[in-house]
This record gives sequence, C-alpha cells and structure tokens, in this order.
Amino acid sequence: MKLASLKEGRDGRLVVVSKDLSRAVDAAEIAATMQAALDRWEDAAPRLERLAEALENGAVESFAFRPEDCAAPLPRAYQWLDGSAYVNHVELVRKARGATMPESFWSDPLMYQGGSDSFLGPCDPILLADESWGLDLEAEVAVVTDDVAQGVDPRDAGDRIRLAMLVNDVTLRALVQNELAKGFGFMQSKPSSSFSPVAVTLGELGERWKETKLHLPLLSYVNGELLGRPDAGVDMAFDFARLIAHAARTRSLSAGTIIGSGTVSNRAPDCSPGRPVSEGGIGYSCLAERNAVEKLLHGAVRSGFLKFGDRIRVEMRDDDGRSIFGAIEQTVAPAPETCHENQPACVQRARK
Amino acid sequence: MKLASLKEGRDGRLVVVSKDLSRAVDAAEIAATMQAALDRWEDAAPRLERLAEALENGAVESFAFRPEDCAAPLPRAYQWLDGSAYVNHVELVRKARGATMPESFWSDPLMYQGGSDSFLGPCDPILLADESWGLDLEAEVAVVTDDVAQGVDPRDAGDRIRLAMLVNDVTLRALVQNELAKGFGFMQSKPSSSFSPVAVTLGELGERWKETKLHLPLLSYVNGELLGRPDAGVDMAFDFARLIAHAARTRSLSAGTIIGSGTVSNRAPDCSPGRPVSEGGIGYSCLAERNAVEKLLHGAVRSGFLKFGDRIRVEMRDDDGRSIFGAIEQTVAPAPETCHENQPACVQRARK
Repeated sequence: MKLASLKEGRDGRLVVVSKDLSRAVDAAEIAATMQAALDRWEDAAPRLERLAEALENGAVESFAFRPEDCAAPLPRAYQWLDGSAYVNHVELVRKARGATMPESFWSDPLMYQGGSDSFLGPCDPILLADESWGLDLEAEVAVVTDDVAQGVDPRDAGDRIRLAMLVNDVTLRALVQNELAKGFGFMQSKPSSSFSPVAVTLGELGERWKETKLHLPLLSYVNGELLGRPDAGVDMAFDFARLIAHAARTRSLSAGTIIGSGTVSNRAPDCSPGRPVSEGGIGYSCLAERNAVEKLLHGAVRSGFLKFGDRIRVEMRDDDGRSIFGAIEQTVAPAPETCHENQPACVQRARK
Repeated sequence: MKLASLKEGRDGRLVVVSKDLSRAVDAAEIAATMQAALDRWEDAAPRLERLAEALENGAVESFAFRPEDCAAPLPRAYQWLDGSAYVNHVELVRKARGATMPESFWSDPLMYQGGSDSFLGPCDPILLADESWGLDLEAEVAVVTDDVAQGVDPRDAGDRIRLAMLVNDVTLRALVQNELAKGFGFMQSKPSSSFSPVAVTLGELGERWKETKLHLPLLSYVNGELLGRPDAGVDMAFDFARLIAHAARTRSLSAGTIIGSGTVSNRAPDCSPGRPVSEGGIGYSCLAERNAVEKLLHGAVRSGFLKFGDRIRVEMRDDDGRSIFGAIEQTVAPAPETCHENQPACVQRARK
C-alpha cells in the first residue's frame, strides 16, 4: 500500500493513496498520523491494507490526490539517520575537495545523525538565505523502521523495515568543509530534507526489492534536464539491513526511524567515475559529483550549484514507467527576511 | 513551574510537580504530553501555571511525586542538539587523546546532532553491551525551545527558551576516536541520553538565570563520591542564546528542540585544568576530564571509566540547598542478550 500525510497541523493527516497516485482516502479512523500508525504498526497495518484494497476497488469514497497538498510522509520524525552506502559517491566528492578516503569506508558504514524536526513536503520550496552557501540536492532512497533492538543482527534487521520512500537530502556544500573539519558532523550544512509524496510498503516494490536494496533507477532532474539515472540497487556497498544494524549497535531505534541510503551513485562499466548524461553516461544524483567529474575530465567545474529559481525533480518509475513514490519537485527560493516562528508558516508565506 | 513526564506509553503523561518535588498533579486536561504542551505553549503555559499555583496552595488533589516513576521530560524528542560551550572541556579531552584544538573553537561553537528517539528516564539503568566501550557520563544543562525562526538573531534567541533541565549525555569513549575520524560526527559513541526528573520554567531559577546561562554548581557523583561541582555559569564560552542562533543559522527549529550546554567544566583560578575534588579542586562533570588531568598530573590514568554496577548521580541545588530538577540517578547494567523491540521494554526487563 501507499501512504501519505496531507498538510495539517504539525504532523499532517494520514491518507491511503491509490497505486496510480490519483486518489486518496482519509485514514484518520485507523491512525490520525503516520507516526501514530508506526507506533502500533502490527495493529494499524492490516487495517490500512484493507482500506487500500477498498480504495483500489472503488468500494470507499475517495478524493483526488495532489502531491502539492502533501507534507513529508513523516512531517517531523524522532530520528533521521543517513548512511553513505554508495561509497563511489563519497570517494568522488572527497576527491573533488582534495581529501582522500580511508580504505575502511568500504567495510565500516558512514552514517550521520540528521535533523528531523521539520522536514519539507515534496513540493515545498527550499528557502535559502545565501546563494553562496552552495545549495545541492542529494537524491536517495530511505526506509522507515519499526522499533529495532539494540545489537540487532544484520540478518534480522531487514524484517524491521516498514516503509520505503525517496528523499532529497538538501546540502549546503560551501558549509560542509568547515563543519566536518570540526569533527562533530553535519548541522548547518544539512538544513531540512524533503521527501517523496508517498511512502510505500515493500510489497509495492515487488521483485525490485531484493536483499534489502531497491533495484531501480533513481531519476534526478535540474531545470527539466536529466541529471542522472543511477540504479539504486547497484554499487550500494551496504544494504539497508546492514545500515540498520550499524545504527543499532549501541542503542535501540524507535518506530519511525528513517534510514537513508546516501546519494545514489554508480560507477561507469570500466570502474571510472560515471560520465554526465550529456556525454552518454548515467549521470549523478547530486551536483557535487557532476562538478567533481567536470573537474576531473575538463580541469575545471563548469556547472556549479543551485541558484534562486532553479527547479529540481526526483522520481523513481516501475517497470511499466509509472511513478512509484510520486515526485519530489522543489524550487529554490530566497528565505524571507522576516521568517517567523516555524518553517510551515514561512513556507506558506514564501509560496504566496 | 516544574513539569515532568510519568512513564506511560511512548510519550509519558504530563504532570505538574510542586517546587519541593514532593507532590504532583495530573495535567492531562491541559496537555496529555510534554510535547503537546510545547506544541501550543502560549495557550498551555498559563493554564499549567495556574495548576502549579493550585498545587502549591493545596487547592487541588495531588499524589506523591517519585523520580523513579519518571521518563525523561521529553521521553522522545524531535531534536537534540548538544553544544560544547565549555571549551575548557573540549581542550582537555582532546589533549588526553593527543589531539590539538583549533583556535576557532573559541569563536565558532561546536555542536552535534544527537539521537533523540528514545531518551532514558532519570532512574533508568544504562544498558551496556560491552564494558570495554569506555562508558562515561557527561553532566550538562539543557534548555527546551519553542519554534525558532531560521536566521534568528542571538539577541532574540533567548526569548525562545521555554524550559531548563539537566542531562547526562552518555558517551562511549572508546568508540569516539574512530567515529570522529570518519568525519560524520557521533552516532554509535553517543547512545541514549538521560534527563533530570523535572524540567522547569526559567522563572523557577530566579536570579541564577542570567544572560541565558544558569549560574549554579552542577554536582556529579560516582558511587556516592563527589566527582565535581563546577559552576555552569562560569567558563561557558557560548551562552544558550548563542547556541540556539548557531543551530538556527540555516534552518528553523521546531518546538521541543533540546539544546545542551556540553559538559560543564571550569578552569582552576590560575587557568590550569581544575584539580580533582580529592585534591581540593572543584573536579569534573565527566570521567574523561578526570582521566586527562590524572595523566597530566601523574603521568598515567588511575581511575578509568564506568563499570557494571557503578552508580552515577547528577543534581543541582538552589541557594537554600534544595534540589531544583531532582537527581539523575543511574546504575550501569549489562544489556540483556535478548533485548526485544524497544528500549522501554528492555529497561523494564533489566530492572526486574
């Protein structure tokens, strides 16, 4: 089944969405919010599945589903941990800023604790105070877990996954270097991430979900042009089960924990960094990689990062070309000078 | 007023606690949980204040308040950001592991994004799978904010503080070095933190809350012996307003965000690292500092880190010697081998 949170209050209103993303039905009688459903998944999931079936059969009253009405599936979450499972990406981005990558990165997963108190909806603008901060997208796959026990075995960790979705892990490249040099990880350089309109159960992914990886191309566009279409199932050095076990090594994880794959990235067949789409390659899921490859191929960065007014789009299509999660579609906009109280209010103001 | 969350479900049950911490009254009619109160503070706070007044006057039915019935004031939170405002601590701990500290640390606050999905209650044991991980306490002051606008001015940021409390930022020292070397910050080396039984409004702190710092000694004990009593208002290089503004530079913060001070630490009057309590000094709020000073004074670490069965206590007393927040009182216990589903369940099992 497919689930979404329509914008309403701080936690949204849970709806079940049809497989073709055209219709939705209110799920409030089962669980008012996505987090409430995850808090008691064993009870809520079968009831939500029945509602989804009724929706497909036209056996329940429904309304038109519009991604622009959506908050992130979890508008705010208790935990957002982002891995860097495509080690190819890490190596390239480091190379671009003149840093080397330790060999251990191929065996010991990189993961950071991200801010999760106010995610952006799929169509919310990215409000940026300063263009010189080097705004970049990072297109990724993410899963949502149930409760996970401390010290969970990687062989059991995959069973704790409840939902999958897409994420744009918004990154301010110009702030990364100074922040990472301080040793305490990302904070200012990773403002609020945005998520796909719907989160789906693994059953919706069919045979494309295999060995806790999602085996489909992830499509990223900037201003309507394809930036990349790397396969999320290829070159993922650590599968989601491994990432969850890494996160839970010294502590339990609570239901609603979001685990990101890291920027999806594939090597070229000859193991060199993949070429840009414009040169016949499969391209990238972030601009930092494109810039890095431009520098390696041409000696200089040609394209740079996102500017005010730029549009991004992130999506994944099934074997029949149908959008699975709906698209993340965002515009970069200047942060209003008088940004009051909380992000949703600011977002509303900026969109008017 | 003083607020606490009694253990119940995932988010606890909000109660108002008497100033002397002896009695409590249910606040469910105003807000079912602490987060619910913070989500609409302007409406909830005056009503909670009236209930607190009725409790002090004996005008409302109350029950005995027991810290051991408490979850953390926010049993799970949407954000936990921990600063390192006592730069003295950072310098000492780095020195102990042979690392130097950049001069910029005195002007650019260090802060990391911590896990906030399952905090420990004040009397919950710390469940440790492996003694060799080097378990340490870090006694700190923390504040809880309302919504904070992106780019907030440090001069306005202090007005967004709603509550103050104490925190034990549990740290696994043996895992820190490898994790920080990876550049993505703490994760495995910082399992769930624990918090004081009650969180208090700034009005409860009177003149001791000044310039967004709390000017009182923070008392830490290990196995009944005083480890340290540094003043939280002294040597705090960045006040809470500054820490909040740092956190909100590139993104808004949502209500219920917890901001930690970092390990409270004072220099000796001659600016050398403070001496242990046993040698007439004011001591420390973590064992890493004690170990570092032992190494500097005696050439070797004598005491080490926490072992199974060790007891810690963290508390702060007002000018009349009365506990303000109640005490964090925890025992170190081996993590059960079959730790199921979620932390609260494991904790229950471990305590039986």
